[in-house]
Amino acid sequence: MTIRALVFDVFGTLVDWRSGVAREAQRLLSAHAPGLDAGAFADAWRGRYDPSMETVRSGARPFVDLDTLQTESLPEVLAAFGISGVPETVRAELVQAWHRLDAWPEVPAAMARLRERFLLAPNSNGPVRLMVDLARRNGLIFDAVLGAGYSRDYKPKPALYRDAVAAFGFAPEETMMVAAHSNDLAAAASHGLATAHLARPSEHGPAGGETAPSVPVTYAARDLADLADQLGCH
Amino acid sequence: MTIRALVFDVFGTLVDWRSGVAREAQRLLSAHAPGLDAGAFADAWRGRYDPSMETVRSGARPFVDLDTLQTESLPEVLAAFGISGVPETVRAELVQAWHRLDAWPEVPAAMARLRERFLLAPNSNGPVRLMVDLARRNGLIFDAVLGAGYSRDYKPKPALYRDAVAAFGFAPEETMMVAAHSNDLAAAASHGLATAHLARPSEHGPAGGETAPSVPVTYAARDLADLADQLGCH
Repeated sequence: MTIRALVFDVFGTLVDWRSGVAREAQRLLSAHAPGLDAGAFADAWRGRYDPSMETVRSGARPFVDLDTLQTESLPEVLAAFGISGVPETVRAELVQAWHRLDAWPEVPAAMARLRERFLLAPNSNGPVRLMVDLARRNGLIFDAVLGAGYSRDYKPKPALYRDAVAAFGFAPEETMMVAAHSNDLAAAASHGLATAHLARPSEHGPAGGETAPSVPVTYAARDLADLADQLGCH
Repeated sequence: MTIRALVFDVFGTLVDWRSGVAREAQRLLSAHAPGLDAGAFADAWRGRYDPSMETVRSGARPFVDLDTLQTESLPEVLAAFGISGVPETVRAELVQAWHRLDAWPEVPAAMARLRERFLLAPNSNGPVRLMVDLARRNGLIFDAVLGAGYSRDYKPKPALYRDAVAAFGFAPEETMMVAAHSNDLAAAASHGLATAHLARPSEHGPAGGETAPSVPVTYAARDLADLADQLGCH
């Protein structure tokens, strides 16, 4: 079956969230926390990401977007690092750090190549505006923005994979989920999507990242340029 | 208040649905209906568009997309023109006519100018894939696809205006609805959005189209290029 559409995980797969959040934390918190380990700060904040989404996935609360979840978890992260007295305006700017992430270096050119052959959309847990900000910042052109904003739930809930397939209207096996995370790809495959794994060995900084999929995938690639090569893009 | 995002009606406002549907009807039905008045056929099909959406808007049935509604209404239109024996594959191709519409001539270049200054999305009653097909066909680049697919309802229901504002995250008055239809703009204004009317005097062929808004609007423009001029785009 021919692949016709690619839907992308974004945090870690297309953009380097750790360096970006650390950069903004360093910039915004230096006055409040001299000597802050900004990478560890980014890790700690990211660590609260999945548990916060679980409150929505479980049905314990109605859908709220990731900006809201990050805003709620930030005070705990600041407290864990012993940082106090951060004004609300600075905390709001910190939440915007997640909108100001840089793509991994090969992504913009590889995405332009993929656009010649496939329909493209993010299928991320980030909201529409966050996806738009990352796309504009990094010169990425998508055909649509799917994911949490579109489905009002969070991966790996079934709605996000089913809605992504339905939105482009191809068969599930013509729609490929691209991610650096095996759990995302396992969920996508369970709904019939094709899957592509990208190695992101420095996603978590010194703690590494997935260098290979731990589940069966349709394609395993070193990065997005390698995937474009494997898919025969010029 | 500064305008930061533009959300667009599409059928009639950005694309010429009547000529496109007539062209495809002529091509696909010539064997079945010699001498067909293809423009009248397009008008008749379009005439069933609003009543079919009303079944969803009213809550009488769950949300189904516009492709489904057009598929359902097509047999009545064929019957009204005395056309019989059209195979299912040809009927399916006819429904695809709505995915193969040409933009009004000034739209592609004007949209590229607007993209330099504003976030852009369709806010149409068409589904995601239809918006994607029209954008690809006409070289339009949007930041997201909002509208019926995103909101699972049809204009002028409030969800479509509220969701469009929330997706981009600006204030309602920073978000402008652009349409050639005063009723769409009246609904948008009732939710606080800024509004821009485009004149489309040939939308309905010999039956004309709105040459000026019949409701108060923020901007009234001759076409999208004139709107870009009025907004100070280079």
